[in-house]
Amino acid sequence: MSILIVGTMAFDALETPFGKVDRIIGGSATYAAWAASNFTQPIKQVSIIGGDFPKEEIAALEARGVEFEGVEVIPDGKSFFWSGRYHLDMNTRDSLITDLNVLAQFDPKIPESYQDCDYVMLGNLVPAVQIKVIQQLKNKPKLVIMDTMNFWMDIAMDELKQVLGMVDLLMVNDSEARQLSGEFSLVKAAKKIQAMGPKYLIIKKGEHGALLFYGDKIFSAPALPLEDVFDPTGAGDTFAGGFIGYLARTDDITFDNMKAAVVIGSAMASFCVEKFGPLRMQELTSAEIGARVEEFISLMHVNIETALAVTI
Amino acid sequence: MSILIVGTMAFDALETPFGKVDRIIGGSATYAAWAASNFTQPIKQVSIIGGDFPKEEIAALEARGVEFEGVEVIPDGKSFFWSGRYHLDMNTRDSLITDLNVLAQFDPKIPESYQDCDYVMLGNLVPAVQIKVIQQLKNKPKLVIMDTMNFWMDIAMDELKQVLGMVDLLMVNDSEARQLSGEFSLVKAAKKIQAMGPKYLIIKKGEHGALLFYGDKIFSAPALPLEDVFDPTGAGDTFAGGFIGYLARTDDITFDNMKAAVVIGSAMASFCVEKFGPLRMQELTSAEIGARVEEFISLMHVNIETALAVTI
Repeated sequence: MSILIVGTMAFDALETPFGKVDRIIGGSATYAAWAASNFTQPIKQVSIIGGDFPKEEIAALEARGVEFEGVEVIPDGKSFFWSGRYHLDMNTRDSLITDLNVLAQFDPKIPESYQDCDYVMLGNLVPAVQIKVIQQLKNKPKLVIMDTMNFWMDIAMDELKQVLGMVDLLMVNDSEARQLSGEFSLVKAAKKIQAMGPKYLIIKKGEHGALLFYGDKIFSAPALPLEDVFDPTGAGDTFAGGFIGYLARTDDITFDNMKAAVVIGSAMASFCVEKFGPLRMQELTSAEIGARVEEFISLMHVNIETALAVTI
Repeated sequence: MSILIVGTMAFDALETPFGKVDRIIGGSATYAAWAASNFTQPIKQVSIIGGDFPKEEIAALEARGVEFEGVEVIPDGKSFFWSGRYHLDMNTRDSLITDLNVLAQFDPKIPESYQDCDYVMLGNLVPAVQIKVIQQLKNKPKLVIMDTMNFWMDIAMDELKQVLGMVDLLMVNDSEARQLSGEFSLVKAAKKIQAMGPKYLIIKKGEHGALLFYGDKIFSAPALPLEDVFDPTGAGDTFAGGFIGYLARTDDITFDNMKAAVVIGSAMASFCVEKFGPLRMQELTSAEIGARVEEFISLMHVNIETALAVTI
């Protein structure tokens, strides 16, 4: 099954306790495409870039089955640029520079050749742009998932709530879930957010893993305990790419399969943070992914049936 | 199999965002005994209390198979008293009052009738007192587990390291693991702490669950996502009691069974936080425990074998 991914393709300048890079490829759609393309191809990419976006990066993605018909190129424009510095805990960061550049004029057009996509991922973007994409879809997809951020809750809550009413699954981190719902308890937050539209909700908790909510069901997936988190940039988009890539590949959106997809997304994210930017994702092999998923299975596996009988 | 539990039996005054109690039964050994006695009896208790410790609380524990021969009573003394206030996140708290009272003269004597215990839990106490207990054990137990806190790392690190060399398993929270090891990464922290003595390490992460380390193996258990955490007091001791109670009941200290014990401990802790003090533990039924463990199993269960074959 093919996937439609809408998001940014950008340059990042990153600083973590482990080092810094002044200019590296980034963007939500870039990370998501690298992750998803391990599981299914083609990936039908929708984004906007400037003439400065490296040809070799485009070629590398095309070699992974990423289609660019939906990626607008502004030859004399500059690609979106973000610069951030991470704190020691790696869960918090400061945005130093946000140059929208060509992103300011992003008005996505969904090509006819993209209309057959059953799986759609809306990366973190202005809610109004996310709405424009959904409105251009002629056939109802099997699954539309979206990411967002606290910034849009601050300045565009009405549009954000409109998008929430149009998607099947929302993916946010714990602080965003708390802000969106006004509830500290993630269980209460999930109920309020599900009432806003998305049947499914994934709350990402960084080093503490992720929670998947559907109706009254909850699944808790751990994060892989790592010796070092080198650079968290793109981990969330990589999680999303692995998640939707696995669902599209298996073409199964039952809750049970979504649980597996959350673990796959977590496994992909655990690779992403091992090197700066998308470097680790670009060198990843299928064998490495299989071994990492095995690590997650042993990390989570417990045999406890007997426990039900042992209380006095 | 019988269990030996050493720890405090006390009065607490608690304040949480949900309310306050001025005087309620508490203490590490109290919570651990209530939890462990669901799985195995007798519980051979070692503590010190004043004449003010309620007879009915002692009777209630005795009815649960908790033996008091090792509990010293100072008729005209006052029991240990602790008062604390929790912050909104419930993961942090301020100690308001700590009156050691009779605890200041705690010099545990292990009765001859306690010498058959294969499972020993050392609650959070002055490391020197924990050492005294171990030194009085004539037969090597199958498993000795201990709890401690940052306070002892600040003022008695040498004695603490001595105890660590004498136990099989250490149980601490994530900030304590980081302070004890000087490592931010919990994986690195675990390696350093295991090198200090304990073969097994459990790092408790509150609402984020717990990690069990043994050699290079790691198991991650979730916490049950709760609508409200009413009062976290005693959750760690309840976890420990459920953990060692299950191990003693099954008399199996393989890593696989310890994983199950971590889930059992987590299930018991999830009850503890539902009401003030040990109230919820005192009314708990075997059927409720079984149902809660089932909740944990569904929270963690994922079928993902197929994932290994789907990457392109």
